[in-house]
Amino acid sequence: MPASPHIDVAVSTVIFALRPGPHNLPSLWTPFVPRTREPFKNKWALPGGWLPDHEQLEDAAARTLAETTGLRPSYVEQLYTFGNLDRSPTGRVISVVYWALVRADEVESAIPGDNVRWFPADHLPELAFDHNDIVNYALERLRTKVAYADIAHSFLGETFTIAQLRSVHEAVLGHKLDAANFRRSVATSPDLIDTGDVLTGTPHRPPKLFKFQPTQTKRFVS
Amino acid sequence: MPASPHIDVAVSTVIFALRPGPHNLPSLWTPFVPRTREPFKNKWALPGGWLPDHEQLEDAAARTLAETTGLRPSYVEQLYTFGNLDRSPTGRVISVVYWALVRADEVESAIPGDNVRWFPADHLPELAFDHNDIVNYALERLRTKVAYADIAHSFLGETFTIAQLRSVHEAVLGHKLDAANFRRSVATSPDLIDTGDVLTGTPHRPPKLFKFQPTQTKRFVS
Repeated sequence: MPASPHIDVAVSTVIFALRPGPHNLPSLWTPFVPRTREPFKNKWALPGGWLPDHEQLEDAAARTLAETTGLRPSYVEQLYTFGNLDRSPTGRVISVVYWALVRADEVESAIPGDNVRWFPADHLPELAFDHNDIVNYALERLRTKVAYADIAHSFLGETFTIAQLRSVHEAVLGHKLDAANFRRSVATSPDLIDTGDVLTGTPHRPPKLFKFQPTQTKRFVS
Repeated sequence: MPASPHIDVAVSTVIFALRPGPHNLPSLWTPFVPRTREPFKNKWALPGGWLPDHEQLEDAAARTLAETTGLRPSYVEQLYTFGNLDRSPTGRVISVVYWALVRADEVESAIPGDNVRWFPADHLPELAFDHNDIVNYALERLRTKVAYADIAHSFLGETFTIAQLRSVHEAVLGHKLDAANFRRSVATSPDLIDTGDVLTGTPHRPPKLFKFQPTQTKRFVS
């Protein structure tokens, strides 16, 4: 096999956090950093950088994320590798993209770099490279994943009320859900467990707290 | 951002086909080609090669697969990108790995290169690089995916008998299933539709033919 051609390898990370959006409703936000040089100088881009020769892929993703946003999620997962021929005007660039979901309190306690800015995930500016496509791909994956119980964990923590769970679903799906219908369908879900506890600090009729059953793989026969 | 370090980018493809195995039972097989030079000269490796500067990732995967195995699956899906620091003794190599499931008749009608050899996926020799890890990762993903109806499609075609469906599950899971239990759990699955047709060419009591309902995303509220 002859030598490989020179191809640039980058890592980037898509972060989704649930934070107050328009009308104070929870919505999905994603952090970006401005490009400081060409190509796409001054455009917003996903946190990331070139893959150093001696750093594992996921370590490079976590490090560049921490350097720019101050975020240190316990786990970054590989999302997809983007390598379209025309995605960078400077030559062939392969981007291995990671993603993570973070809770609002993780965002509040992070000490971000100077230039990071959060945008609502469904109202992004024109980003550098194909980063709009990358965020949209991640959003699609998230919307599929919200069907599975454990995804909401990452936004909510261990226990939550039905109203909190609904707000996660609404934020991810991007539209309101009927509260009574949602409560009914959740009540019949085998994935949810009533903890027997209630949310404290609320005036009267404190709402029940639920938690998720560990996900079980659906198989015809085990 | 300074220039990126030189990192080699390769593509590889994991193919799973369902073919007769030990005792003539269907089992999963995967094709490999021998390495013709160092490193790992004469070891078996996944079909693949360096990513050319001007070829899309999935096109490079499909081309190298066709050149070695003669297989031209209608669709190769990105599986994962492997980039561990120590996976090649010659320096940093990132492998973007694709995978596809093919039917036995696709294998029979393919005109393979001289050196390709198929091995049972769960009885592999020691492969080049981290290719044992890659195949095992793909097997894990396949075992999770077999829970979802449509995966068996790729092995079976449009319609199939319950016994044929069970043999796919047995081959993927790597162990026998109780025929009566399997039939019962399948009978209650909303994903399977009785076509009203039977398998022709069988002596008496010809078995019914089924097909899959298009997969629907499970959501709390649609």
